[in-house]
Amino acid sequence: MYTKAMLTKSHAKYIQSLSQKKFRDEEDAFIAEGPKIINELLQSKNTGLKQLYALQSWADENKPFLNSISDKFIEITEKDLERISFLQSPNQVLGVFKKPLFEKNDCVGKISLLLDCIQDPGNLGTIVRTADWFGIENIICSTDSADVFNPKVVQATMGSISRVQVIYEDLKKFIQKNQAIPVYATAPEGNSLFEMKKIKEGFVLIGNESKGIQTDLFLLAHQKITIPKKGYAESLNAAVAAGIMMAWTRGF
Amino acid sequence: MYTKAMLTKSHAKYIQSLSQKKFRDEEDAFIAEGPKIINELLQSKNTGLKQLYALQSWADENKPFLNSISDKFIEITEKDLERISFLQSPNQVLGVFKKPLFEKNDCVGKISLLLDCIQDPGNLGTIVRTADWFGIENIICSTDSADVFNPKVVQATMGSISRVQVIYEDLKKFIQKNQAIPVYATAPEGNSLFEMKKIKEGFVLIGNESKGIQTDLFLLAHQKITIPKKGYAESLNAAVAAGIMMAWTRGF
Repeated sequence: MYTKAMLTKSHAKYIQSLSQKKFRDEEDAFIAEGPKIINELLQSKNTGLKQLYALQSWADENKPFLNSISDKFIEITEKDLERISFLQSPNQVLGVFKKPLFEKNDCVGKISLLLDCIQDPGNLGTIVRTADWFGIENIICSTDSADVFNPKVVQATMGSISRVQVIYEDLKKFIQKNQAIPVYATAPEGNSLFEMKKIKEGFVLIGNESKGIQTDLFLLAHQKITIPKKGYAESLNAAVAAGIMMAWTRGF
Repeated sequence: MYTKAMLTKSHAKYIQSLSQKKFRDEEDAFIAEGPKIINELLQSKNTGLKQLYALQSWADENKPFLNSISDKFIEITEKDLERISFLQSPNQVLGVFKKPLFEKNDCVGKISLLLDCIQDPGNLGTIVRTADWFGIENIICSTDSADVFNPKVVQATMGSISRVQVIYEDLKKFIQKNQAIPVYATAPEGNSLFEMKKIKEGFVLIGNESKGIQTDLFLLAHQKITIPKKGYAESLNAAVAAGIMMAWTRGF
């Protein structure tokens, strides 16, 4: 049996500190919430549990499992969960996890994503989740992109954060270092996606929500591709555009 | 010249009331914010301006135009904008608009979307925006879906709310009433989207974020389609799945 502990001020303060990138980096840790994501992370070999805080109802349903992590588990009240949760509607359980570690993994012979300054946490998380659906293992973000361990990003990945490797690099240098791999950039003047064959290897480059792809990166693209517009919207949401591009690489 | 007016308590109360569906319906009105969306709505023939509140900086940039709507315009301070805005970062201008009116419009010979209980405002708004990109004119939502005039949905449409007709219906009855139009539903056991030809007419049925498509609706589908998974994510985000389905109907 696990022992019932109390949520102390120092626990609450520690969790709160993990809303900031600086402390997440220092602690090599991030927060996730809700039974679904927590479950996925607990099963992952790439990450590790540091602390788990949950309501009695969740603990009751997960008793056999809790014995194995009893030293890391604290049962808390709804009021305490509200205090530490980053969600508008706190959802039973909050965990602090080690940032995932991935085996060394290059981009040769694969589809990878390059994200140039994706700023919206929901978009970034959704892109990670979609990449995981399509079996894309690597996402390389520009250093000015949102942090993938931001709690809002983590929630939007729905657990995929433990399976897709997300790294931060100077994209220009990264492309130059991997110059044998073709770069496909979305651009209004590009070739129609609907007329292109699927690809087996490449960097798919997705731009910022409002500014698109930086000029100096754009100039490095081997092929420009457009998702043909038939209506009037000025642009597509970045996560939707990325999703359509990923679908294309996988089979259209 | 427009006259500078003050934001009164009754204005603020009226705007606040429009966060609730009940009042939006009673007033046949909705709120939009930010220069980009406001601009699109002001240019639209389908909607009409009721009131516009903006900072002096916005007013200065739009002076010639403001003369034509001077009786509806109120210049406000940043503090007042913070008071009435629904955004985390208020963005210069907030408008109250009449709900758009569309010409009578049926679904014959077209692609339309059926949304079964899409709950997340961001997802619904993004789906409307994507539909507008792909020239899809009609979206039919189940009556338990999020309201398209919810301020969060309006913001996520990025102005497309004035160009895509969104109606609320009992989807089962709606499909039965339009039985000559084939229904395509997303389902794990369906045919691979990558092996299907594009379509010219049909209802594309998208399900709820966690529960998917209701059984009784699902049984009415003529064709089941899956977006093939190559990785491990349990599901796709609803707006991404809808975007990939729309891209398919348009050309893949």
